[in-house]
Formats: sequence, structure tokens, C-alpha cells
Amino acid sequence: MQHIDHDLALIKRGASELLLESELSERLRSSRPLRVKAGFDPTAPDLHLGHTVLINKLRQFQELGHHVMFLIGDFTGMIGDPSGKNATRPPLTREQIAQNAETYRSQIFKILDPARTEICFNSSWMNQLDAGDMIRLASLQTVARMLERDDFAKRYSANQSISIHEFLYPLCQGYDSVALKADVELGGTDQRFNLLMGREMQKHYGQQPQCVLMMPLLEGLDGVNKMSKSLGNYIGIDEPAGEIFGKLMSVSDDLMWRYYELLSLRTSTELDGLRDQAEQGRNPRDIKLELAHELTARFHGVSVAESAQSDFLARFQKGAMPEDMPAVALALPDAGLPIANLLKQAGLVASTSEGLRMVGQGAVKLDGQRVDDKALVLVSEGEVVAQVGKRRWARLTLSRA
Amino acid sequence: MQHIDHDLALIKRGASELLLESELSERLRSSRPLRVKAGFDPTAPDLHLGHTVLINKLRQFQELGHHVMFLIGDFTGMIGDPSGKNATRPPLTREQIAQNAETYRSQIFKILDPARTEICFNSSWMNQLDAGDMIRLASLQTVARMLERDDFAKRYSANQSISIHEFLYPLCQGYDSVALKADVELGGTDQRFNLLMGREMQKHYGQQPQCVLMMPLLEGLDGVNKMSKSLGNYIGIDEPAGEIFGKLMSVSDDLMWRYYELLSLRTSTELDGLRDQAEQGRNPRDIKLELAHELTARFHGVSVAESAQSDFLARFQKGAMPEDMPAVALALPDAGLPIANLLKQAGLVASTSEGLRMVGQGAVKLDGQRVDDKALVLVSEGEVVAQVGKRRWARLTLSRA
Repeated sequence: MQHIDHDLALIKRGASELLLESELSERLRSSRPLRVKAGFDPTAPDLHLGHTVLINKLRQFQELGHHVMFLIGDFTGMIGDPSGKNATRPPLTREQIAQNAETYRSQIFKILDPARTEICFNSSWMNQLDAGDMIRLASLQTVARMLERDDFAKRYSANQSISIHEFLYPLCQGYDSVALKADVELGGTDQRFNLLMGREMQKHYGQQPQCVLMMPLLEGLDGVNKMSKSLGNYIGIDEPAGEIFGKLMSVSDDLMWRYYELLSLRTSTELDGLRDQAEQGRNPRDIKLELAHELTARFHGVSVAESAQSDFLARFQKGAMPEDMPAVALALPDAGLPIANLLKQAGLVASTSEGLRMVGQGAVKLDGQRVDDKALVLVSEGEVVAQVGKRRWARLTLSRA
Repeated sequence: MQHIDHDLALIKRGASELLLESELSERLRSSRPLRVKAGFDPTAPDLHLGHTVLINKLRQFQELGHHVMFLIGDFTGMIGDPSGKNATRPPLTREQIAQNAETYRSQIFKILDPARTEICFNSSWMNQLDAGDMIRLASLQTVARMLERDDFAKRYSANQSISIHEFLYPLCQGYDSVALKADVELGGTDQRFNLLMGREMQKHYGQQPQCVLMMPLLEGLDGVNKMSKSLGNYIGIDEPAGEIFGKLMSVSDDLMWRYYELLSLRTSTELDGLRDQAEQGRNPRDIKLELAHELTARFHGVSVAESAQSDFLARFQKGAMPEDMPAVALALPDAGLPIANLLKQAGLVASTSEGLRMVGQGAVKLDGQRVDDKALVLVSEGEVVAQVGKRRWARLTLSRA
């Protein structure tokens, strides 16, 4: 029983919801490797740390001896958006799917154990179904039940159109669990409805319904919004080591603990140890360094992580950045502030033309990142450290009038 | 133009609604044979006159030179009721479908011209579709549009469950029109939604949308309810000639004109002639005889219709049924009235045992039909003419206490 409590604790770490814990406990007691499913979009294989929350959890299942099914939902991807309303979702070809799968593989095996990972494509069973089978599948759920789903309910009551095929997708996702005989399915909290659909479909097909483990959506670097590429608050796992390291060092202390919980593969005991150290006065920046090191090492290897750390420390700790740089408040116009104007207003250059020349020479950095684009326009409020050459520094605060 | 007006008038005769008349006129002008579709249930090939309203209309199209597609909806029939809620709708086998089609054939060719009739099965194209095709089909309509359908709207607002596959059936029916390239679809007024779905689907597939001709539901012998087997107010087209003839002679004069309009294949000019005769004082019964003769002849041939008519006249007109028979009111117990008790209470036999003996000898008739079953129990209120041997008659009125 001891090990089941331990396993359950690890599985639940960071999770938002587990349905049903009693069922999962019982399956864990059986001591057979559980079949753990998580579904991924076939169109977006460019992973960031937000995606790795699920993948880390899969890894934890593997560490406990279970079998991971990394499901690429290519069936619907190959249909595209049949309503034709979304022009950005043309059907994927078989070649594109294969290529995306390869990209996934190169990324996820930085976290997952290939020996315990099965990459599956739902087209392999969905393409076997004919129109009659789809009708049978559709008969297993009611319209009212579907309209309970949050986004459907909102759209329906707002008179926004819902195409009938959108009702079929959750059924297909549910049927995937049947085809895979999943014991557990992992997903984001936004997938709750579809994850439960898997349970219902399995019951209809005489299987024991899967347990459902929902993981929270990871906050982005701003600590507020969901990490997403379109919001720009993300860390891509294929980014250069220096980027990953630097971005992680930029997060707040609160967010650091959140990232430890959801992204680190350290044991819960180790995490408790770090929290104790913080309480006893250890500098949070040093604890953050360990997180940045762990995650950078995961995607680039330990030696690259070491140099990223040295570079970081060299720039920001060993006095490369002066502690007494001038603080300057700048007004941010609605149309944004071009880089040359920013440098001039900050007193770092004498004229905008000098500013542009310095950018051209590669002598301008913002927050330690070299600026290469003379046309760069800053549009966000907030703090940024600007540097021109080796000795001109300013800590700028941009805010709208 | 003359012939188009004539054709349109014939097509519209008795119809509830034509969508859109202007489109149909235009197609008629093209002078090519139009493709005229009507769908039939694969499970119920036992036709009554109610079904023939549509079939007569198809026949009229044939007379105008058009091509009739008699569509047997076997695809959904072979799926059965996938939700399993309706135990009386098990899937049909291919053999049953073929057998039912044969039964249809033997019945409909009493009305339709085989040379201009194509019997189609929607399984022949629906079985070619895979799950992805069904999803594409489902994407062509919205949930809100589907919930506009009368019965769905009622059930949804009454919190009665609607399975998702029920939304797929109208789409399949609509797709049938695409597969058949229908110019016109015929259906009952209760099929309005599904018939219009055909138009929408054809538009999506780049076809000119079909015209839709809706026929009213035929009233049964009671002149009130829709003709249906379960209500017992029907005339089956495979019934014996005497039955068909006698039942038609029993309808009210109003209903007779309705049946003329919807069931007779006489021209509209001929019908106008009959109406004139009635106004000029011709006995409606004689006009009814012509209707009974036409319809009996359609299903049994002219010579059989002649004898049915002679028999009818012999029994009911040439004094076989006395005009002055006694009228007797009988109380109808909850458990019904056994035939022998009825005869005794009516004073037609001296004892129930004599009653049973007379039944055994084939000497008892109710409304002119010989009673062969000694165990017959009358359970319905109403009037019935009872006869024992040649000379004992009574007009009975049965009513519950």
C-alpha cells in the first residue's frame, strides 16, 4: 500500500483534478503497467514549456512503470476544417502528418522514455470506420449533453453557429480511448468535457472507464496569461539555451515555484527541501538558477546548460550590468516607441541617427538581447534595461500617458 | 407555354405546397425528362391508400414524360436504431431489404410505369462514405438549424432526449438528393424539413436545388385521422377486392371528393365533370361507385372490380339488406361482448349455444363479413349490422354504460 500512496502523490502533484482517485488507486494496486493516453494536435508540433506540463506528467507515469500512448490526432487534421470557415486549417497531407510526428518525436524524447512510449495516430482506427459506424457513434450521446459543454453552451446561447460536425469531434476523441483501451487519459483543464466523453464511450463499449487526470494550463512568463506562442509569453523547447536560461531567470519568485511544481522532474521531497531553504533565507535567485539549469539541461544537455549559466552569471552577476545605472521613465505613445527614439530619449545616444547606427553595429541590447532590427518598435509598457556599447546603461520604465 | 401551364396544374393538383413554382416552371420549359425522387421506408412495404397519394403523384409525373426514382432508404434501415432504444427496430439484413423491395415492386407497379421507374437504394452511395465523409456532411449544417425542426424543437424544449445521430439522418436524406441529382422531391407535409435539407445539400454540392412538392397526409376512413394501419382506418392495396370496394363505399361524400382529388387518376377535367353532375342532382352514391370501381380495378383489374361492384350492389342495393331491420341498443361491457352473447342479446338467436352453432355454420355476418371465429369479442363502440342466415337482421348500436 505504501508504494500506491507514493505513486498517487506523484501522479497528483500539480494536477487540477483526478477522476476518480478510488478507481486509479484500484488500478495501481493491480501492479500491471497502465495504458496512459494523451492527445496532441497534429498541426502544431512546435512545443513550448506549456505543452511539457502534460509530457512531464507522462514521464512521471513512465517512472512508475506505466505505458504511455502519445496520440497524434491526425484523423480530424486530415479532414481539415470541413465547414471551410477556417481558411487557416486546410487538410494536412499524409506527408505533413509524418513530418509533424517526426518533429514531435525529436522534442518529446527529451522528456519521455522512448522504450515506454508508443506514438499513435487515430487515423489508424478512425479511417476504418464507415458512415454507418459514425452514425452508431453519434447515437451514443445526446444533443442536450453536448450543449452542456462550456463553449457550446456559450455559443448556442449567443446565437453563434455550431456546426453539427463539431459535435462529432468529442465523440471521436472518446472513441480513441476505446480503441486504445486507455486506463488513464491526461489533458488540460480545458479538455474536461472531452476527457469525460472518453469515460462514457468506454462504458458504452463495455470497457472499464478511464481515469481522467487534468493538468492546469501553465502561466506564461507574465505570470498571468496562459503560456502561448501568440501572446509571446512562452519559452519554446527548441529555443537556444541562453534564451531558455535567461527567460526562466526573468520570472517572478511565485512563478518560479509554480514552474518547479509543474515543470521540474525533481521529487516532491527535493522540492520541499528547496522551499525550506528559501524560508531559511536562501536567495531565491539561486533557487531559480537551479530551475533554469534543470530545464536548459533537459533540452540542450548538461554541458550546454553549464555554459548558459556561466554566460548569464557573467553578464548579470559579475558586474557586467552596473548596479547604479540611471533609471529613466519614458512615455509610450499609442503607436509605440521606435528603438532609435527610445535610445535618444533615454540619453544613451545623441540623436536618433546615432541610435540607428549603433543598432546597425550590433551595439544595442535590450534586457541583454542584441537588437538587430532598426525598425523595432516597442509597444508594451514595463521595465527594460537598455545598453549601448559596453558602458552606456539605463533602466527604462515605459508607460502610456 | 400552354403545355407548361397544363403540366403545372396537374402537378399541383391536391398538393399542399410547391417550392418553388418558378423554378419548376423553368425546368419544365427545358423539355428534358426531370428526375423525380420520393423516399420510402425499407421496413414497411405493406402499402395502403395513404401511401399511394405520393405514388399517384409520381405516376402523374410519368404521364408527363418524367423519370421517377423510387428510393428505398435501406442505409439507415441496415443500421437499425443505433441507440438501441427502440427494440422494435433491429437492423434489416440485405435479404430482408431485397424481399421488401420485391414487395414494393409488386405493389407500386400497379400504379407506376416500370419503364419510367428506377428503384434505388441509398446504401449504394451511403455505404461508400467513410467516417470522414460523414463528418464533412455534418459540417454543412448547424445545430441551431436542426433544432428548428418541429419535432426536435418540441423534444428539446420538453427536455426529451435527442441523440446526435438523429441530426445525421436528415443530412443523409439530403445527400440522397445530391447522389440522385434530383430535380424534384416529393414527400408528405410532415417531411418538409428533410425535403428542404435536400435543397441545401444540393446547393453545397454545386447542384441546382431540387423543387419540393409536398402532398397532404390522406385522411383515413373516419375522415378525421391520418390513414394508418395502427388506427385501423385504412384500405390496404393488397386487401381483397370486396374489402376495398366496400370500404370506399362507406366513406362520407366529403371524403369521397378528397379521395377523388388525391387518389383518382382521372383528369381534372373529368373531376370537374363529376362535380357538375353532383350539383345537378346525381346521387353521390353513384359517383362513389365510380371511385370504388376505379381504385378496385387499379389493384385487382377491371373484371374483378366489376364483380366486386355487382356483389356490393346485390347485397346493399338490391334489397339483400332489408331497409326495415330492427335497431337494437346493446351495452358494451369493459371486457367486450362475445359474438354469441351479442347475437342472443340482439334477439337473433335463442341462446348463446345457438349463436356459436350458427357461427360454426358460417351463417353469421357482421357488416356483411362472415364471422368465422367463435371466440370473437367485440370491443369497440359503434354501429354494426348483424345477420344470421338469410332472414334474421338487426342494426346494433354498441355503447359502454
